[in-house]
Order: sequence, then structure tokens, then C-alpha cells
Amino acid sequence: MEHLDYSNQAAWTRVSGDKQSPVALSDSLAVKNDFETTLSFNYDHTASYVRDTGAGIEVGLHGTANIGNRPFSLNQFHIHTPSEHTVNDKSYEAEIHFVHEASDGRLAVVAVLVQSGAASQTYDAVLAHMNQKETFDIPVDDIMPENKAYYHYIGSLTTPPLTENVEWYVLKQPVTLSTEQINHLKTFYSHNNRDLQALNDRPIISSN
Amino acid sequence: MEHLDYSNQAAWTRVSGDKQSPVALSDSLAVKNDFETTLSFNYDHTASYVRDTGAGIEVGLHGTANIGNRPFSLNQFHIHTPSEHTVNDKSYEAEIHFVHEASDGRLAVVAVLVQSGAASQTYDAVLAHMNQKETFDIPVDDIMPENKAYYHYIGSLTTPPLTENVEWYVLKQPVTLSTEQINHLKTFYSHNNRDLQALNDRPIISSN
Repeated sequence: MEHLDYSNQAAWTRVSGDKQSPVALSDSLAVKNDFETTLSFNYDHTASYVRDTGAGIEVGLHGTANIGNRPFSLNQFHIHTPSEHTVNDKSYEAEIHFVHEASDGRLAVVAVLVQSGAASQTYDAVLAHMNQKETFDIPVDDIMPENKAYYHYIGSLTTPPLTENVEWYVLKQPVTLSTEQINHLKTFYSHNNRDLQALNDRPIISSN
Repeated sequence: MEHLDYSNQAAWTRVSGDKQSPVALSDSLAVKNDFETTLSFNYDHTASYVRDTGAGIEVGLHGTANIGNRPFSLNQFHIHTPSEHTVNDKSYEAEIHFVHEASDGRLAVVAVLVQSGAASQTYDAVLAHMNQKETFDIPVDDIMPENKAYYHYIGSLTTPPLTENVEWYVLKQPVTLSTEQINHLKTFYSHNNRDLQALNDRPIISSN
């Protein structure tokens, strides 16, 4: 057995970039969760800003979440149009990313898919405060589905720096924006969805 | 606000390599855990092989663990000489890595520091089966300290492919090998410890 050369560590090859997001999710690929993990969220109902980051519309919102039996803090949410993940080959009108961080720096993104239907009061509140830094009331509940069943896998941020080490939880039940709201959203970004990335043998977990 | 160029995604820069292991741990850097997380292990007492991987001596051992309130499976353990992590600027004679994997592919390594003292029956069992692929009885308990207090941070594998996305739990209480056993271990690898890596603002969590 040839030994690893500890006297020339700079020559070691580091592998990365093979666990990126988004990916194509599907029930045929997913395996069932091997232990009970429910998601719960306790978000504020006051947002602190709305801004166009250059990668999407982002809303400053804080709160707490219990994800995978561990506490996380919500940093912000932002919107991609159309959806970044696909589910059973279906793309959605939009995808909302709630970005959480744990005390050890671990990131967990909860993704909510959006289809056209009833109008969202949350979207109207966001729109009314576009590019403003003042606090405002935000309902939030109409962009978070009641059923928290999810697909879970380990991936990356979908915008630079594309950091890997992100826990993804893509909720199965979509929420709705009205067609008018979706069309309005597209006036900011008509397509700020990253291309689907190779799964590379990563397991996809289905919560139930 | 200049928009991210979604029509040329191949040009996006991916950042990685800044969350590597091992690192210098210290009580002055560590922050207290913000919620109760205990580690528990239920390892088999039958090992399936001992092999020199070229990076160290590795022992095939399975079992289960509860780490951060989630179930993991033990894949193997292996030994570095001297220790890879340092604690309060102190290096140890050796460091044993118990490598666990969760169903989503997440890796968690529990590191046990070794100082010289009482001889380890586990080490003798490993030595007696060096480079053999037959099963053998292994006590294990004398290389796992009673007190499971730990330092935790997010890092990487310490040998190629140096994969990031690894949860590290470095136990504070060391175990012992006899000086004779340590000297014997060094006949296989006198220094298979990777250089300390920059912490780069990663939080270090202390369990109590």
C-alpha cells in the first residue's frame, strides 16, 4: 500500500462541486425518511426590508425554526421565477427560499413552490415596500403551506458563492400567487432560476 | 442593481475550500451550545477487517449513533498519529476518528484524542488482526471516553477528497494507549496528521 504523502500536503486533490442545487426531485428517486422529522416555524410578522439583490427579490424577515430536530434562525426569504427545483418533472411558477442558519453556521433552506391561484397578501405587502428599508407587517402564513411534508437532500446555494453544505427541504404542498402577481413578479426577474444540477448519487429523502 | 447573469451560469464563481479540517480548538474561541445535544453510541463489538489504507490504520466496525438529535450509522474508525486537532494549543499522541453517515449522506466524525497511559485492549485486538479480513471481537469501550462532552464545528475530511460538509465532534476527555502501543502504532505511521487549517470565522461550539 502506497502511503499518502504527508510531507507534500499541498499536492492533495480536493473534490467539490458535485453536490450542487437545484436538482430534479421525484417520488421514484426518493427514499422514505428513516426517522420522524417534522418542520416547524415560528416566524416574525414584521419584515425589516425588501431589496433587489441582483439575484432576486429578498425580504428581511427573522424568526426561528425547528428543522431536523435542531434549532435554526431565519435570515431572509427571497423568490426565484420560475421554480429552481422540479418535482416529478414539473416546474412551478416560482419558488420561495426561506434561508435559515444554525449556531454552527450550517445553512438550511426551506423551499416553497408557487403555483397560480388565490392572490397572496404577503406578496402585496412585499410589493408595497419594494426597495424600502422600513419595517412593515407581513402575514407570511399564505406563503407557507399548512402541510409541511418535504423532499430533503444535501445541496448548495443556487447563486454565487454556490456554497455546498446546505440542507434543502422542498415542501411538497405549493402555495399560490394570483396570475397577476406572478406576472408582476416576472417584471423584476423573468427567469432567475439556476439550471438543474446533476444529483451525483445523492440520496433524496421523502418525509412521508 | 446589476443583475446576476442567468444566461451565462457557467461563468459563476463557486467558493469552496475555506471550511477544512483539522483546526485548532480552544476554550477561548468556543461558544456554548444553544440547545441540549448529547452524543450516544451503540457500536457493535465485532469488527470485520483491519487494513492499512495508505492514509492510516482503518478498522471495519458498524453500529449506530445519535448525533445532534439525528440517527447516524458508523462506517469505520481509523487512527491518526499524532492528533490532527489541537485543543488549547495541545497536541495529543493520536486521534481516533469514528466516521458516521446519515441517510441523507451527511457525514459526522467523532474524534477521540489519545494520550499515553493504561494499555488499550481494543488496540491489542486491532493489532492482532492487522491486514486481515476476518471478523473478530473488539471491546471498543476503552477507546470511547465515558464523558461525551465535545467541541463541534463544520469542517472536512482530513484526507483526499477532503470533502467539506462534515460535522465534527471532538470529545474533550481523552482515552489512553500505553506508551508501548503508541510507539508500535508509529511504526505504521509516524505522522499521518494533516496540517492545521484556517478556521475562517467558523464558529466552534462547546457542549457544556
